[in-house]
Amino acid sequence: MSSFSSSSSFADALLSPRAVALVGASGDARKNTARPLRFMRKHGYSGAIYPINAARAEILGERAYPSLAGLPGPVDHVFVMIPGIEVAALLPACAEAGARVVTVYSDGFGETGPDGQARQAALVAQARGLGLRLLGPNSIGLADLHTGGILSVNAAFEADTLLPGDISMVSQSGSMMGSLLSRAAARGFGFAKSVSVGNESDISVGEVVDALVDDAHTKVILMFLETLRDAPTLARALTRARVQGKPVVAYKLGRSEQGDALAQSHTGAMAGNDAAVDAFLITHGVMRVRHLETLFEIAPLASRYRRPSRAAAAVAEGAAARVAVITTTGGGAATVVDNLGLHGLAAVAPPADFVRMIAQSGLNIRETPVIDLTLAASSAQYKMLLEHLLRADWCDAVLSVVGSSAQFHPGLAVKPLLEADKPDGKPLAVFLAPEAPESLALLRAGGIAAFRTPEACADALSVFFADAGQPPVAGTPVAWPDGLPQRGMLSEHESGALFRSLGVPVSAGQLLTPDALHHSVPYPLVAKVCSPDLAHKTELGAVRVGIADGQALALAAGQMLDAVRRQAPQARIDGILVQPMESRLIELILGYRHDPLVGPTVLLGAGGIAAELSPDFALRLAPVSVDEARRMIVEVRQTRLVRGFRGLPEGDCESLARTIAAFSRLACLAGVQVEEAEINPLFVRADGVVAVDGLVRVA
Amino acid sequence: MSSFSSSSSFADALLSPRAVALVGASGDARKNTARPLRFMRKHGYSGAIYPINAARAEILGERAYPSLAGLPGPVDHVFVMIPGIEVAALLPACAEAGARVVTVYSDGFGETGPDGQARQAALVAQARGLGLRLLGPNSIGLADLHTGGILSVNAAFEADTLLPGDISMVSQSGSMMGSLLSRAAARGFGFAKSVSVGNESDISVGEVVDALVDDAHTKVILMFLETLRDAPTLARALTRARVQGKPVVAYKLGRSEQGDALAQSHTGAMAGNDAAVDAFLITHGVMRVRHLETLFEIAPLASRYRRPSRAAAAVAEGAAARVAVITTTGGGAATVVDNLGLHGLAAVAPPADFVRMIAQSGLNIRETPVIDLTLAASSAQYKMLLEHLLRADWCDAVLSVVGSSAQFHPGLAVKPLLEADKPDGKPLAVFLAPEAPESLALLRAGGIAAFRTPEACADALSVFFADAGQPPVAGTPVAWPDGLPQRGMLSEHESGALFRSLGVPVSAGQLLTPDALHHSVPYPLVAKVCSPDLAHKTELGAVRVGIADGQALALAAGQMLDAVRRQAPQARIDGILVQPMESRLIELILGYRHDPLVGPTVLLGAGGIAAELSPDFALRLAPVSVDEARRMIVEVRQTRLVRGFRGLPEGDCESLARTIAAFSRLACLAGVQVEEAEINPLFVRADGVVAVDGLVRVA
Repeated sequence: MSSFSSSSSFADALLSPRAVALVGASGDARKNTARPLRFMRKHGYSGAIYPINAARAEILGERAYPSLAGLPGPVDHVFVMIPGIEVAALLPACAEAGARVVTVYSDGFGETGPDGQARQAALVAQARGLGLRLLGPNSIGLADLHTGGILSVNAAFEADTLLPGDISMVSQSGSMMGSLLSRAAARGFGFAKSVSVGNESDISVGEVVDALVDDAHTKVILMFLETLRDAPTLARALTRARVQGKPVVAYKLGRSEQGDALAQSHTGAMAGNDAAVDAFLITHGVMRVRHLETLFEIAPLASRYRRPSRAAAAVAEGAAARVAVITTTGGGAATVVDNLGLHGLAAVAPPADFVRMIAQSGLNIRETPVIDLTLAASSAQYKMLLEHLLRADWCDAVLSVVGSSAQFHPGLAVKPLLEADKPDGKPLAVFLAPEAPESLALLRAGGIAAFRTPEACADALSVFFADAGQPPVAGTPVAWPDGLPQRGMLSEHESGALFRSLGVPVSAGQLLTPDALHHSVPYPLVAKVCSPDLAHKTELGAVRVGIADGQALALAAGQMLDAVRRQAPQARIDGILVQPMESRLIELILGYRHDPLVGPTVLLGAGGIAAELSPDFALRLAPVSVDEARRMIVEVRQTRLVRGFRGLPEGDCESLARTIAAFSRLACLAGVQVEEAEINPLFVRADGVVAVDGLVRVA
Repeated sequence: MSSFSSSSSFADALLSPRAVALVGASGDARKNTARPLRFMRKHGYSGAIYPINAARAEILGERAYPSLAGLPGPVDHVFVMIPGIEVAALLPACAEAGARVVTVYSDGFGETGPDGQARQAALVAQARGLGLRLLGPNSIGLADLHTGGILSVNAAFEADTLLPGDISMVSQSGSMMGSLLSRAAARGFGFAKSVSVGNESDISVGEVVDALVDDAHTKVILMFLETLRDAPTLARALTRARVQGKPVVAYKLGRSEQGDALAQSHTGAMAGNDAAVDAFLITHGVMRVRHLETLFEIAPLASRYRRPSRAAAAVAEGAAARVAVITTTGGGAATVVDNLGLHGLAAVAPPADFVRMIAQSGLNIRETPVIDLTLAASSAQYKMLLEHLLRADWCDAVLSVVGSSAQFHPGLAVKPLLEADKPDGKPLAVFLAPEAPESLALLRAGGIAAFRTPEACADALSVFFADAGQPPVAGTPVAWPDGLPQRGMLSEHESGALFRSLGVPVSAGQLLTPDALHHSVPYPLVAKVCSPDLAHKTELGAVRVGIADGQALALAAGQMLDAVRRQAPQARIDGILVQPMESRLIELILGYRHDPLVGPTVLLGAGGIAAELSPDFALRLAPVSVDEARRMIVEVRQTRLVRGFRGLPEGDCESLARTIAAFSRLACLAGVQVEEAEINPLFVRADGVVAVDGLVRVA
């Protein structure tokens, strides 16, 4: 197809092209479209650059070409800065020129509405047909900071010097890519690659992450996310990153409903559901930070140290990560420790034998959660104590908070931190209380994680120690039970049959025809109208509890059927479902949803009306293992009532965990996709659990 | 008493002394104790400075004096840097020299334990006897940045130039005073006065704030707090600050339990109770920020704009402050808007008529919650839009988020912000997405509130718009009911009588003698053993509900008394209390506590065991008005169940508000100090509320 053959791999063509064409390059240095050429010359790109401009033979003092046809050599990456409407006509020439990747800065596609989406889909189809891959459209471009290969109009590359480094970033926001680069550069954080994905019409965040996993210059991968557009690809890339020990950190918009809604509208995303995306990120071992600057400040922590993986048993309340705190400013240390407390990390006091050991080395410290050395310790003593802390078995991390010396005597202040022998096993984080840019720079150069604000410092430590999530379990396929409908809503009785087939204990209901109410359920019992069309039976008067005998049942059945026929005349009626009255300690909700962004998810939530007043749930990608289900149980506050709270009777949490895992296997049904399912309520008892009501919606 | 007479006022002597003595000044320039003289010379102090050093006639090239006796002129402030044990002997000479204030840098007092506390108390008593006021001990000192009067060893004053300004700070942490000064200075924030209070043995935070209220150079007062040591004095100062329109901002440690405990141990505070201190600060109109740098970054917002005061009715859910957002970086704006959402502020879209009006001026914007002008608007159009937004009636504040131009074209980027005609009525806040120190400096110089991080920006706006709190109501004295004990625990029956005397509806109980169970309470009823010594009656088997008739009552009374005599043989028994069975929609808890830090407080909390799983309460200084009580009701999530939630019956919230206000008047009892009181449960019904059980502990 192409007259030139390119020898680059896709990843090289994308991230480190050896020859590039700039279509629409301007000769007016003030224009955005003049930037890539200027940036690449400024930052020493050594590959071939072909500016394409039909109107000019020379651009910024260099030869320009009228079109992609007839270039002196092949290109592997074309950067397109012409009006969006002209892009499609350009693609064949891109292929002819040997390009494997075309980055489209041009806008006017998916971000503009349905027409633009159609143009974008056609563009991608055309590119695929030509053997091309597209980054964008509406991408501000990408950069290789080691080669100066800057296919971007982002103003951040105006900087006179770019710092190459071992961090790479992929961003769904072009402007934030630049803002983060500039903030990181000011702190001495160098980058390897930086990629803005624009509309992600073809090459998605996941594919970029995948390429970065293999990039030798990249040690940490940062993501600035507004939504997820291709979760399966990202999931595969994150699994590879985890296997290869390459940490991935994310800042994702949408922690508040308002932010979630805004990110949707801004990106044209089809749905927003931050909780599901959060579950996705955690499951795949991504560290999601809450503060913007933590995104890069956490890099030294993320790249040097392994995150602990804790057993579910240790996730129970109280098993907080333990941080030893050493400082020359009690007030400064307290600003971090206070925030650590908000995130559930514990500042721990050194035990007596540790204090004695340190005293034998001539330094007196106390058994307090903050070891305050103000004026008391020499630099050598500080180093000695730090080395002991980094090897102590009573703490999981060490936090050093430095006072005014960091501002006025940077060399002295950070000396013990830099010089201490630091094992890789225990993270060290530093906060500098005063404005101390020199000390920050020295620590950065020394590869030590140092933070500008107490909030970011606590954010980083808490994210590092947050439960890393387990790789999703591969679910073996489950057969759809014979005789159940494979589309639309299932009735309660049918839903119960599906749940039972997965191993969920379901209340032993019997479906009766209204004119033959024979059954073997003991009185008193519950009777309901069974219909796939009635989601809110109680409100319709289609549920009766405490029915004492056959006569009462007959009466109730008649009244319920009348009520349903009157209020929901269209509803199909399968019959009358009778169930035993079930007892409980607490009631929970089990939910399943095929989330449009991340796919199957399972939710365990508090039941009852009070639970609606404040969120109390745990959400995971489905299916989950029994072990992961145990973690979910601990996350739901309401379950404390059956886990040894104030002498209350304990519930059967093992049975609950098995039930959650079984229910989550709705994700494994062969040939049928369940859209939504719910068990509400799920009763937890001392000797097991039981699903009392539920429904299922099939695609 | 003194041989010199000082004409300074206390406030001048404290904050802007005209002649100072430095006791213990070192001639070794490297020592901390050489700093004050060096600092004052460096920063141009024009008053008299008398270094006192018994061993040297000259210090740093200046004449030194062997003692405070025989100085050439009077001093109004002495800064003491000698060993703590020698300070007491120095005080008479301070008084003789004319000093009104002695700042004691020396340590070894209250912070060291009981002995040090005794030495500190003796020092204060001696100073008072001599007509002296003490700042410290263990104070790192204070500074007047307009005069260069730096009575401090804080390294922050090593800076070659100090920026005088209109912000003043009082800090309970000496090192954080320096850290904050250095961080603020790096951002162009100048200070008027900066005071470290040390152990607050005599001059407390409140007294410094009081002096700053009258300081002409001070427009905003910042506090860095670890605890409260003298709430009444601070309350008076804050009341004066509010009246005079001088905003007060606080960063207080202790938002987490861990931080609260740490601050206590660090300061030797007698108690920690962040919730009570928070109520104190809010009541007194203090803006409590969550992020360290917000403390000074909020100053332009706080000093220029009046905080809105909203009626209780408007505090209901949904009445969020509305922020119009204008930006050139959608992603950057989203980082702030997401955080605003977490704090309950709403980014609002411009209404159609506003969009039309702006279109008539040639600028097309959309009805979206973020007005994104990327590349679309000229500087003049930006200014025009901003001026319209600052006058629009559909938003309460304007947030501008600036993109890469702030980094590379600072002048251009901030031009419309600086040049726009900005009325004082509507706050403008700015976040710069990239690293853009020049733009930050330009905005600072222009008096515009600009923030370095999206988190601090959202923090400042949310704190500014948080309910400002009402000045505490002055409670008219209430008489202690005749016949009730005035010390120790009151029984449930006595507690009920006290509550009833305040106007709280209490279940109509009758106290019966065990051998004469005659009463007029209708059956079925509740019976309890009444005793001042039984706090947990239910656990002891001393409560029975649903008693059907007289025979059952007699049986129950006997069994309960047996149970109490067996398990709590020392308990005094007043009799058997019978009460009607009360119905309820929800149950709440009303609590009263004479907090050791802030004095009387009243708490409304969710009742029942589920409420113990997550905090759900509102806390205020007592007494509260009925209007303030209404705000408390809205703050407690559980009350949503009786405020029109999902068609549930509504409770009598007006009666509840009156009851909270009445109960809070426990703070107004003449001659008797109630330490603690609780109504648990308080039943809320459709037609009123009723206290079902309660107790009171008198001092």
